[in-house]
Amino acid sequence: MAVQKAVVLLSGGLDSTTVLAMARAEGFACYTLSFDYGQRHRAELEAAERIAQRLGAAEHKVIRMDLASIGGSALTDYSVAVPENAGEGVPITYVPARNTVFLSLALGWAEVLQARDIFLGVNAVDYSGYPDCRPEFVAAFEGLANLATKAGVEGDRFSIHAPLQNLSKAEIVRAGIRLGVDYSMTVSCYQADSGGLACGRCESCVLRAAGFAAANIVDPTHYAKKSPQWVD
Amino acid sequence: MAVQKAVVLLSGGLDSTTVLAMARAEGFACYTLSFDYGQRHRAELEAAERIAQRLGAAEHKVIRMDLASIGGSALTDYSVAVPENAGEGVPITYVPARNTVFLSLALGWAEVLQARDIFLGVNAVDYSGYPDCRPEFVAAFEGLANLATKAGVEGDRFSIHAPLQNLSKAEIVRAGIRLGVDYSMTVSCYQADSGGLACGRCESCVLRAAGFAAANIVDPTHYAKKSPQWVD
Repeated sequence: MAVQKAVVLLSGGLDSTTVLAMARAEGFACYTLSFDYGQRHRAELEAAERIAQRLGAAEHKVIRMDLASIGGSALTDYSVAVPENAGEGVPITYVPARNTVFLSLALGWAEVLQARDIFLGVNAVDYSGYPDCRPEFVAAFEGLANLATKAGVEGDRFSIHAPLQNLSKAEIVRAGIRLGVDYSMTVSCYQADSGGLACGRCESCVLRAAGFAAANIVDPTHYAKKSPQWVD
Repeated sequence: MAVQKAVVLLSGGLDSTTVLAMARAEGFACYTLSFDYGQRHRAELEAAERIAQRLGAAEHKVIRMDLASIGGSALTDYSVAVPENAGEGVPITYVPARNTVFLSLALGWAEVLQARDIFLGVNAVDYSGYPDCRPEFVAAFEGLANLATKAGVEGDRFSIHAPLQNLSKAEIVRAGIRLGVDYSMTVSCYQADSGGLACGRCESCVLRAAGFAAANIVDPTHYAKKSPQWVD
């Protein structure tokens, strides 16, 4: 039997890297997809490329797209400050329709590759704030994928896998460590510097650090010296 | 009451131009969106810009995106020839997941603009061949939009309008003529030359010419001299 192909959305952060390790462990030939969409935290793009190589991706692709021209998010609109404390409701780091756009492009590539499996790293922690991280969104996209495509119409169904959906950050970290993930390679910070050093202050950094702490695993993140997390 | 905003997907072809005229006639302030996705028929991008201006769009945006790097279609993969006769099943001019990708980006822009209406020009003629032109696809995307977004989650619902859905090409042409559309500005040809002259041979040209003929309207298309449709 031929090895099954999967498209894996890979941002270069902790979650998507864990998902790539899981998809590899399930035996998929993984085609990793990153987006250069005008995000502030470009160090994650370089991290994604290194991670794809280290974890044995069959191919890594970066699609350029000027989402910044749409505006509306602190992650692409440089006039909006990244908040350093989590607030109520949908955070301003939410990029409008981002996961819908990313999954759509993953779907297009999957169709060309004749892959029927798409993996993404949405999880329960994001659930509370980002509407496009919820299980009902993922299920709705799977339904759409099977109406939108030649393969779906012909009965060869797509599956959208969100294996972190019900895991806490600590459970994600533990799962990745068991699979041998080197988290020092990953960049989660919303405002990492050009060298990939994390600020230790933004919501993403705070969630990530709390995940390592809760998992009783030494945080391997490379922090900037001005970071509250930085240790010599 | 403030004027309602709508995002209109505008390719510069006959169908989407008619849709823009319809949305304007309904009183929407229209934000037109085109994509530079590595398509062969770049003359349509120039046509879209002129049409947006002529039909009084509030703003016209072009998003660049390298769909060509995904491959798989005669419209973006220059190694695949554009067929000159309609075949059976899904045509090879189908761009993988194109309408899903385009609607996703329209949704993102709509959310930023606080528009809740998105128009696109899919229709019954396309229905037979392109899976992402079918009514069930449009309905599924509307459902997804209301799960994927901050506004949808907060109960401020999006509507996806496909006013050409049940119209024949001739009915579309008649509707546009009634609204004063100048179809000589539009470019439908899959392989229009750099000046926007139509080949008269590809599936899109053949459907379009048949539409004008069935509507008993003189075809205002600018054909290349080598085209079978060309008249002096």
